Amino acid sequence: MKTVVVNASKEYAVHIGPGLLSGLGEAAAALTGGETVCIVSDSRVFPLYGAAARRSLEQAGFSVIHYTFPAGESSKNGSVFLELLNHLAENRLTRRDLVVALGGGVTGDLSGFAAACYLRGIRLIQIPTTLLAAVDSSVGGKTAIDLPAGKNLAGAFYQPSLVLCDTDTLATLPPQVFLDGCGEVIKYGILYDPQLFSLLEKTGASFDLEQVIARCVELKRNVVMEDEFDTGARMKLNLGHTIGHGIEAASSFSVSHGMAVAAGIAMITRAAMKRGICPASDGARILDLLTRFGLPIDTKYPAETLYSYALSDKKRSGGTVNLIVPRRIGCCAILPTPVEQVQSWIQEGL
Amino acid sequence: MKTVVVNASKEYAVHIGPGLLSGLGEAAAALTGGETVCIVSDSRVFPLYGAAARRSLEQAGFSVIHYTFPAGESSKNGSVFLELLNHLAENRLTRRDLVVALGGGVTGDLSGFAAACYLRGIRLIQIPTTLLAAVDSSVGGKTAIDLPAGKNLAGAFYQPSLVLCDTDTLATLPPQVFLDGCGEVIKYGILYDPQLFSLLEKTGASFDLEQVIARCVELKRNVVMEDEFDTGARMKLNLGHTIGHGIEAASSFSVSHGMAVAAGIAMITRAAMKRGICPASDGARILDLLTRFGLPIDTKYPAETLYSYALSDKKRSGGTVNLIVPRRIGCCAILPTPVEQVQSWIQEGL
Repeated sequence: MKTVVVNASKEYAVHIGPGLLSGLGEAAAALTGGETVCIVSDSRVFPLYGAAARRSLEQAGFSVIHYTFPAGESSKNGSVFLELLNHLAENRLTRRDLVVALGGGVTGDLSGFAAACYLRGIRLIQIPTTLLAAVDSSVGGKTAIDLPAGKNLAGAFYQPSLVLCDTDTLATLPPQVFLDGCGEVIKYGILYDPQLFSLLEKTGASFDLEQVIARCVELKRNVVMEDEFDTGARMKLNLGHTIGHGIEAASSFSVSHGMAVAAGIAMITRAAMKRGICPASDGARILDLLTRFGLPIDTKYPAETLYSYALSDKKRSGGTVNLIVPRRIGCCAILPTPVEQVQSWIQEGL
Repeated sequence: MKTVVVNASKEYAVHIGPGLLSGLGEAAAALTGGETVCIVSDSRVFPLYGAAARRSLEQAGFSVIHYTFPAGESSKNGSVFLELLNHLAENRLTRRDLVVALGGGVTGDLSGFAAACYLRGIRLIQIPTTLLAAVDSSVGGKTAIDLPAGKNLAGAFYQPSLVLCDTDTLATLPPQVFLDGCGEVIKYGILYDPQLFSLLEKTGASFDLEQVIARCVELKRNVVMEDEFDTGARMKLNLGHTIGHGIEAASSFSVSHGMAVAAGIAMITRAAMKRGICPASDGARILDLLTRFGLPIDTKYPAETLYSYALSDKKRSGGTVNLIVPRRIGCCAILPTPVEQVQSWIQEGL
């Protein structure tokens, strides 16, 4: 097991390793004298790991309830959010009780936001069961729901009290879902860590889970500690996201987040190469590594379509979009770009 | 004009005085370089002050949109909250833009919570137009909506960037709504300030608005700075609220918050007198002052009914309710009370 400690507005540990789910109850009891835990999970993950989570919590003396919702991004909406809040209220959870988010990014975002708001904040344990959630959404405290007008438009900065990443749960992921996370892992290499990038060039998708996840969590921890509330350096984590969100939205979310971001990274890299910002050799290595993992490096949607979705992206600030652009492997720049110039970036990326 | 500066997780000014609404635009422009302001208000207040607020903002160069909802506590719910969030999103407000809460406590709580969540937080100006909101909900950053299971069960701690209390807007309040606020003003005297209490004994309801509101805001500021996140001293502000919430809920909210809290204060005072916690002389002065203002000092609901609603009160913590009990005028105690003993407190208060 590896442990990464995050020192944000709250200090908490991220444990990564096999078999951690069975220690959930003990870990929860160490956090709180509360009596009740609500496990939040989706229709795909709860049947796999819900019983093990419940058993561990009950053995530690907790009374356990659960809330499940249909798997998929479309559940990350306002009415599921309100229903979850009311489930907590009907079961009279108090400020000393706990929410456990058991699942992928949708589960973590939704239950994190509900934990932030219920009674103005109750404790939260994140148990990411996808690679994407393990290296990204479960750490750092960004929680959100989607609104009809766009993705992640309402949410809270709310740090968990503990993250347990049981690598056994990642071993059973469908290949496509595992791949989704690989895009984010590669992203960390491009953004911050040439050594991680080189390692991935050697191993391909058969990298050591514990080692690579712990490294990604460390890298994310560093940026969260520098910029918890996303006003500066943290924006770099949006590499590939402006175009990626456009692809997701244009496909009505039939293209997954990880696939869309991978294509977004490839496109912004290609545009950066054309503009002489990223050397051809580094750009080629990025496109090659994405391809080697089986990730997409282009999209069927035209620039105008992607552009219109990029406009409703929340990272737009007063007519300017902050594009994250690779300079070389391990170093990216934040380029504030007038909204009207974004379409030409997208065009050059196609 | 008087100004009270609040130093919580954010520092902000509370200005109190006549004619402040006309300075809204200038004050907003000093806060942000944003372009768009959304005025949130209800069907009663927007027709009175919406145009003046809009004019001032437009003169300062802002583009102004608004969102109004039916006046009343029943609008402080999840679906109005989501609709407001989506209104902000559809109008593409960015993180540099502003929400102005123009109205009473419902408006402040609802728009404050939406401002806290939209894009994980955009700036908020509170313009309380009721006495209750001026002395209580507009300062200190507690925002919330009600859930079917109870009042204020979901929300955020979210400080405004500015509070403008234009005392002219309070001069036109219906007597009943003004009275609602008087209960809270008396509460501050009982909790913290024998001199304020004595002043109110002299003036009755014809006290100087600017002076008394500024004093109440100072007292609230002090407790918020001591305990922003409501884990200790801030609980005292709940004087009268456990029973008061019970009365509100039992009446399906036909009894207003201020009236219910006044009756709650009277009942807990009576119980404290019977138990020898509050001297008879101080208790009598409390009941007399409430009566002099025309506030209720009892309720028609039986103890069992009030008790069952007190149980779903969010301040319950693991089987214990923190009752706030007057010891003398200017000093109250927090008494952690096992849930099963609360009914006898209520019974003794009747």
